[in-house]
Amino acid sequence: MKIGIIGGGAVGLLFAGYLGQKFDVTLIVRRELQLQSLLMNGITVHKGGSSFTTRVDSDLLTEVSMKFDFVIVAVKEYDLKPLEKVLELMDKNQPLLFLQNGIGHLEWVESLPHHNLLAGSVEHGALKENDHVLHHLGVGKTNLALIKGEWGAVEELVSQSIPSFPFLLKQDFEEMLLTKLFVNVLINPLTALTRVRNGKLVENPHLHQLQRDLFQELLLLYPHMERNVSFEGVVEICNNTYENRSSMLKDIESERKTEIESILGVLLEKAQREHHFVPIMNVVYRLVKGIEREGLGG
Amino acid sequence: MKIGIIGGGAVGLLFAGYLGQKFDVTLIVRRELQLQSLLMNGITVHKGGSSFTTRVDSDLLTEVSMKFDFVIVAVKEYDLKPLEKVLELMDKNQPLLFLQNGIGHLEWVESLPHHNLLAGSVEHGALKENDHVLHHLGVGKTNLALIKGEWGAVEELVSQSIPSFPFLLKQDFEEMLLTKLFVNVLINPLTALTRVRNGKLVENPHLHQLQRDLFQELLLLYPHMERNVSFEGVVEICNNTYENRSSMLKDIESERKTEIESILGVLLEKAQREHHFVPIMNVVYRLVKGIEREGLGG
Repeated sequence: MKIGIIGGGAVGLLFAGYLGQKFDVTLIVRRELQLQSLLMNGITVHKGGSSFTTRVDSDLLTEVSMKFDFVIVAVKEYDLKPLEKVLELMDKNQPLLFLQNGIGHLEWVESLPHHNLLAGSVEHGALKENDHVLHHLGVGKTNLALIKGEWGAVEELVSQSIPSFPFLLKQDFEEMLLTKLFVNVLINPLTALTRVRNGKLVENPHLHQLQRDLFQELLLLYPHMERNVSFEGVVEICNNTYENRSSMLKDIESERKTEIESILGVLLEKAQREHHFVPIMNVVYRLVKGIEREGLGG
Repeated sequence: MKIGIIGGGAVGLLFAGYLGQKFDVTLIVRRELQLQSLLMNGITVHKGGSSFTTRVDSDLLTEVSMKFDFVIVAVKEYDLKPLEKVLELMDKNQPLLFLQNGIGHLEWVESLPHHNLLAGSVEHGALKENDHVLHHLGVGKTNLALIKGEWGAVEELVSQSIPSFPFLLKQDFEEMLLTKLFVNVLINPLTALTRVRNGKLVENPHLHQLQRDLFQELLLLYPHMERNVSFEGVVEICNNTYENRSSMLKDIESERKTEIESILGVLLEKAQREHHFVPIMNVVYRLVKGIEREGLGG
């Protein structure tokens, strides 16, 4: 089975590193330098005390022939738009699996001319060290759900997958993505602003109260999610990832663009449209945007 | 005129350094090490490119005889309480001038048995380098107002004061302290959370909008202050102190206790008592408290 993976960030490398052990994987990247590094070194995944290296094909985004059984799109949400032309050149029967955080990209994905569209929600923790080395920190699973069309070749991925890199099929893609979004909202911006590790959000009474109130604001926007996400579940995730630094915290510390728009910006737009009052989200959003702007040069 | 100054922090050193040039000043400190350092070196004030050194008397808080024409209390608000016994041993006619930020200490000050009580609001910027050296960064003035009793010896201070270290008499001590408090609320916690210099609060659109909304929350609590503080005035202060790092930012970066209780804690108590809804203050308070707690060891 030929799998194309677009995006050489932490998620793209993680999926190529694992899936490349079993399938014919091509990792499609933007930069010539990363392409050369991948062809020369393969992908090295560090996990716990050990590591393994996987050799995969690699191609530049501009040159890729795009003949795959399915394609995994593993770029950040804010990098999706420039892919539009590349995706439109591809066979419309080729399933596309989108691994972005948030829900802001859903409308755009649903408007694509492809017949088979899927969404994934990644629970793994991954930290990219350089263009071909990454650390697999939190071992979780990948949830998959159909947006439209058929599962097709993706079923093979699920049934044949590697035990230490499991996939799980979900019924409702919106519920699946919202569940992940809730977790992201309740961990990422708060750790980014206070620069603490995930576990501290639960341990520190001031931050925990804030997290609890933020959860209530989320339920204002999505009352039906009370069935799918419990605050206790979020607490458990914080405890299970106690020592982790969230991706948004890493972005803020490295003065990179954050995913605040995908995570909170979209929710604030919804709140405004539907006249919900969500002051905590508002303050947290502006503080992160303010810091991000300074980090990127003001 | 004999002046006692209690507190060897930035404000105490600043006042002793300037007033010691003209008056008989005793700087009263807590630590033996600082006492020795002051007796050996005097106080050195760096300002712009130049500096001057003032020799003053110094004493330990526990041993001090407390015979002065008036006493300036220059400790942080959260360090006031332990002074209660020392102050009560003093001549009740001796005027006391309190230089704390915020308004949380007013009730306590008014309950003291002394006949002449004054409050001051310091507009200078000062950064302590070590126990006897400080940098006078922003040159401003000191506003003085009577809480109860008579001006007494303090009038001499005002009329004879050093041109580069001016004092100004104010009619209403509450208005005076609230004016300073507004400025502190609108600059200190926001710079501490985002780790930017004062000027950025005005320049960065996300932070500026937050600052503007926070100003409206302050007016909810103190509607009559609309006559005394304008948002434009706060913007001007941010621009005039463009390159400054606020004291709360320095405290957060140095993992020290902040003045968040004196600056926001008191306002949140008032809001709760009077049933005002002040969500921005709430979020900002909790974030700062959360970070402060981690900095102090969790």
